[in-house]
Amino acid sequence: MKTLLPAFALAGFVAALIAAADADPVPRIVDEGLKSDGAYRKLAWLTDRIGPRLSGSENLEKAVRWCADEMRRDGLEKVRPEKVIVPHWVRGEASGRILAPAPHPMAILALGMSDGTPTGGVTAQVVEVTSLEDVAALGEKAKGKIVLFNKRIYANGGDDRGYGSAVGLRFKGASAAAKVGAVGMLIRSLATADLRLPHTGAMGYDEGVPHVPAAAIAPEDAELIHRFLAAGETVTVTFTLTCKNLPDAESANVVGEIVGSEKPDEVVVIGGHLDSWDVGTGAQDDGAGCAITMEAIRLIRSLGLTPKRTIRAVLFTNEENGLRGGKAYAEAHAGELSRHVAAIESDSGGARPLGFGVSAGAGGVDVVKKLAAALAPFAADDVQTGGGGADISPTADAGVPQLGLRQDATHYFDIHHTMADTLDKVNAHDLAMNATAMAVMAWQLANLDPPLPRYTPPKTEDTTKPPGIRR
Amino acid sequence: MKTLLPAFALAGFVAALIAAADADPVPRIVDEGLKSDGAYRKLAWLTDRIGPRLSGSENLEKAVRWCADEMRRDGLEKVRPEKVIVPHWVRGEASGRILAPAPHPMAILALGMSDGTPTGGVTAQVVEVTSLEDVAALGEKAKGKIVLFNKRIYANGGDDRGYGSAVGLRFKGASAAAKVGAVGMLIRSLATADLRLPHTGAMGYDEGVPHVPAAAIAPEDAELIHRFLAAGETVTVTFTLTCKNLPDAESANVVGEIVGSEKPDEVVVIGGHLDSWDVGTGAQDDGAGCAITMEAIRLIRSLGLTPKRTIRAVLFTNEENGLRGGKAYAEAHAGELSRHVAAIESDSGGARPLGFGVSAGAGGVDVVKKLAAALAPFAADDVQTGGGGADISPTADAGVPQLGLRQDATHYFDIHHTMADTLDKVNAHDLAMNATAMAVMAWQLANLDPPLPRYTPPKTEDTTKPPGIRR
Repeated sequence: MKTLLPAFALAGFVAALIAAADADPVPRIVDEGLKSDGAYRKLAWLTDRIGPRLSGSENLEKAVRWCADEMRRDGLEKVRPEKVIVPHWVRGEASGRILAPAPHPMAILALGMSDGTPTGGVTAQVVEVTSLEDVAALGEKAKGKIVLFNKRIYANGGDDRGYGSAVGLRFKGASAAAKVGAVGMLIRSLATADLRLPHTGAMGYDEGVPHVPAAAIAPEDAELIHRFLAAGETVTVTFTLTCKNLPDAESANVVGEIVGSEKPDEVVVIGGHLDSWDVGTGAQDDGAGCAITMEAIRLIRSLGLTPKRTIRAVLFTNEENGLRGGKAYAEAHAGELSRHVAAIESDSGGARPLGFGVSAGAGGVDVVKKLAAALAPFAADDVQTGGGGADISPTADAGVPQLGLRQDATHYFDIHHTMADTLDKVNAHDLAMNATAMAVMAWQLANLDPPLPRYTPPKTEDTTKPPGIRR
Repeated sequence: MKTLLPAFALAGFVAALIAAADADPVPRIVDEGLKSDGAYRKLAWLTDRIGPRLSGSENLEKAVRWCADEMRRDGLEKVRPEKVIVPHWVRGEASGRILAPAPHPMAILALGMSDGTPTGGVTAQVVEVTSLEDVAALGEKAKGKIVLFNKRIYANGGDDRGYGSAVGLRFKGASAAAKVGAVGMLIRSLATADLRLPHTGAMGYDEGVPHVPAAAIAPEDAELIHRFLAAGETVTVTFTLTCKNLPDAESANVVGEIVGSEKPDEVVVIGGHLDSWDVGTGAQDDGAGCAITMEAIRLIRSLGLTPKRTIRAVLFTNEENGLRGGKAYAEAHAGELSRHVAAIESDSGGARPLGFGVSAGAGGVDVVKKLAAALAPFAADDVQTGGGGADISPTADAGVPQLGLRQDATHYFDIHHTMADTLDKVNAHDLAMNATAMAVMAWQLANLDPPLPRYTPPKTEDTTKPPGIRR
């Protein structure tokens, strides 16, 4: 026998439940978020089923379509691709060898946006440096040579000893070398593990300087060259790259929202970048950020919660080799940015969340610290001064407070920009904690009165670094 | 003003010093050994200057010549190459891809001694197994398929969960697959790190069974295939190998001695293997063992010490894909083996020494434990029951007590048989401790009365495993 409740009684009961829950929705978000494997399932589709997502590739556009469809399945509002014209660089093949004083193969990958070598490759003696200043100081000694930037980076080393200390060499090294007459540029991979794995990444050419081909070699190969040079040997290497730039292609940022109930034109942006390098499947960089973003907003929607302000998920295109997605978003939404109350990016992988980095006006960090207390049950409440992300950085000049979801990055640069950036490195529960942290912070910022104090970014830029991480 | 001592006074003083020191030479060996970077310098030459040393290669014969010259420079006696005919397998190129349900490249290396694929490669659906029994049980289901042996191994996992638990799959898997009609064999690399790196290693074909091509793929690729299969998908892969077997080639074991003062025809053999795989430079496997061996005997010689029995260093050729060096030594010296009082091998890399594994007659382990007490100052005194090495194993049937120098192998299988097996993974002081441990143990065994009790090896063999590690 079935027990039937009158429809109106059931409706009243549900409404009462919702009202009770809405009085304090954050614990519900945490409870549901930590139970869900939704972020992992989204990431698995992006990486295993679609694969790598380099700008200009068919895969990236598959991902754009799939993510928009997924946002619709998740019940988001105003789901749309927002068109972005992106670079279309293709890797081709790379090979390289040490020729003297003893022959050895090199594990090598072209740097993104590099020109290819002439047919037959580039063959020359190697000069070794560890900074852009070193190259300039080489003067005539670099003429006709291949410059090797051989700077080791360390896990959790920050801007002094970590990735940030060497990314400028990768981005600007080729032109610095060309300025003193070098014919090619190699860089020790920006790597914190040594398993003969080269790490790619973006480079750029200065205007008016000859384009010399640029590639990353495995740490082992750089160490070997160093040992030969330290022993007083002349080291000759050869490398061949068939990479090239094609005409720009069309791509899109993928956007979906929960429209705010009271101030729908005030917005909290949450996001990651949908494009990845073409080696590996961009699981950590930044499939994880996209999965976290999509799951965070799905979580809020699935609980029937509506924030006062709009929460907008943005999966940016073309972070890796151009930042065109981030720039296009800021341009297309320029008129709205004064009403963007915060932007949160996740672009440091999928390991467990530590907390947030915050760039906001005076007192903003302390406000976020209070909000992050809700994340203490899973130790994601460590809030630090300074943070954000490359994709949201173009909104900073409009004063939008910038938040970066901080992950444990101890092993992030072991596999960053390599063929080993694959799903198996990501733990489903770690990802669930990240999505929960993102959801809780976005929800609170969307309801916060007054909102976070607006941000005034520093005026100085480090133009040696790729766009998006210059200040 | 110079102070001149009469020559006879100086000579007397030195003689007295030597006499005093000879009363207890072990501390001198330890002191000198730990100060020396000789092993590292030898290893650097073998790896950086010569490179990989696969059987049949020019590099291996370069290494044979250089090691013999080095032994002469080190003042050893009776230095000579002892001719060995070895297999000559060449790798050629390998490539592979997952075709369905989604396209992905695979990081792949042919297994050593595998036949190549037909031109155009092998393309088929994948069936996944974790044991040789699994394959046999597949029956008709394997017909026309590619069998993937997908067994994870764990660092320090021993025969149950480590390398020893999967090496039989690598060695015998192709024929097991062919017996049930498979057209190819793939194996998850026997790896304890995941950086998209395939690990090669020897395989063998059973007689009378069709030769199907066999290759190792990176752990990531095996995991991806597993995820697809677990989701109920049909997985299709293709791979192409251009490896092939050429006619046998001539190589040599390199032998050098310190002839014993009292019983010169009684011998302690110390050794490692000079050949390596062709990927990487065989720094850990087993350049380290050769450098340790050469430095251990040099150390004793350099101190002017002469043991009662002969200490003979043997750098074996062709361990990796044939064990021809170890077999040839036992055959050529068959008449001497009853007077071989011990054989010590180092073939577990160059990380810090832990002690020795011992296979000897009753009471032998306890004797070695007492001798190893001299290694306690650098914590290399952990002696365990059971040990030896593949190259010395052919002497076991003659009763020669077998000792294996045991290294910390926690990271050994991260890079074993890969292009990442390079000098940078080896620490000079770790290597010095190993050479010292080898020297101290060899010295003591060469002077021990009575010598170690003779060994009686077990009669049973695990013929699924490569020769040398079957019992």
